[in-house]
Amino acid sequence: MTITVGFLVFPGLQLLDLAGPYEIFSALPDGEIHLFWKTREPVACSAGMRFYPTTTLGDGPLVDVLCIPGGVGINPLLCDEEVQAWVQRQASTAQFVTSVCTGALLLGAAGLLKARHATTHWRYHDLLAEFGAIPVRERVVRDGNLITGGGVTAGIDFGLVLVAALRGQAAAEEIQLALEYAPEPPFQAGRPEDAPKDIVEVVLRRTETLHAERERVTGQWTTRSPAE
Amino acid sequence: MTITVGFLVFPGLQLLDLAGPYEIFSALPDGEIHLFWKTREPVACSAGMRFYPTTTLGDGPLVDVLCIPGGVGINPLLCDEEVQAWVQRQASTAQFVTSVCTGALLLGAAGLLKARHATTHWRYHDLLAEFGAIPVRERVVRDGNLITGGGVTAGIDFGLVLVAALRGQAAAEEIQLALEYAPEPPFQAGRPEDAPKDIVEVVLRRTETLHAERERVTGQWTTRSPAE
Repeated sequence: MTITVGFLVFPGLQLLDLAGPYEIFSALPDGEIHLFWKTREPVACSAGMRFYPTTTLGDGPLVDVLCIPGGVGINPLLCDEEVQAWVQRQASTAQFVTSVCTGALLLGAAGLLKARHATTHWRYHDLLAEFGAIPVRERVVRDGNLITGGGVTAGIDFGLVLVAALRGQAAAEEIQLALEYAPEPPFQAGRPEDAPKDIVEVVLRRTETLHAERERVTGQWTTRSPAE
Repeated sequence: MTITVGFLVFPGLQLLDLAGPYEIFSALPDGEIHLFWKTREPVACSAGMRFYPTTTLGDGPLVDVLCIPGGVGINPLLCDEEVQAWVQRQASTAQFVTSVCTGALLLGAAGLLKARHATTHWRYHDLLAEFGAIPVRERVVRDGNLITGGGVTAGIDFGLVLVAALRGQAAAEEIQLALEYAPEPPFQAGRPEDAPKDIVEVVLRRTETLHAERERVTGQWTTRSPAE
């Protein structure tokens, strides 16, 4: 039976958030992938590459797996009612509701993280609580049909976890082998707990404005949507 | 000083081969990325997503770092004189000549692997010798200014190794932390040495036709280009 996977794509998407799970689900013999956006015009990812959505929020099908990747472009979507209504509609029928990186913030803004265990990029992890989520600092977090991945490259681990949930461990292992996913990071700096302190300081400073902007938007959300 | 990085993109490119190093080099404060192809018309990656090159083989600049990603679409390029002439021209002035996955086969076809240590995707590793390369089964292999990465996801490790070579370890660590690259593969199946035997058998069978096709093309190359 075909598995339909719908990714939300948008201007300012981080390409690597998408590319990991995109390749993984595309490798399913019976996977059918849709890239949803408001229009079919090309969008530019955060690093500049321009690519085409395959369908629109209005035209595309209801999917089995909803996946929201992150990136700097997630910010305007946190206040975008059209996008949030689409996320809610898809989530109400999807078998799995998922995100990679700061895509989780959009799930939060759509009200889908309330009292659910979730993760996101380490730098923005403190914002999950604003949406009523139960924040968990793990690479991939599953809570029922909600699966969230950590920052950027966590999308690969997330994708394999989800394939195993959908099609069994052997299917995930076949894809892992085909993608030669036997990572060997040359340095130990992938998490703030592991990285040298001065490296963490640099990245914190560099993302200060982006964090402040996201904090402002998520703060508004809390005011707008009191706990049920 | 700006670092210019030129990726060759093409129909049938494996998106994840590109996306890892693309995000990594884009995160360099002074990185300038070009996506080269024959025309500026959109190309479709192997999983179907259509995206735009940013320049053409004829128009783009000579770059500091030449990077050839792989994918099923590499095959026709192994017999494509226009592309090979472009690769040779760029390689003759680039500071680093690099590949991810089966992109190495194009470097080989362009005559750039003779007597050089190199790697590629494990499934096609036996073809490196056809080009006179010294095959090495490691995730990232450096031989002077030639740096080759293994299959698909090795592009992330490769990208960080290259950033460290260009800008120092701290620059690579900052990017690793920003991309939260602290991988946790859910299974041990990323290399044929680690994967369960039946999983290896499935992937070998599934790629038999592609391997045979590549073997045929690389065999022709050996006949056409006798050792110097």
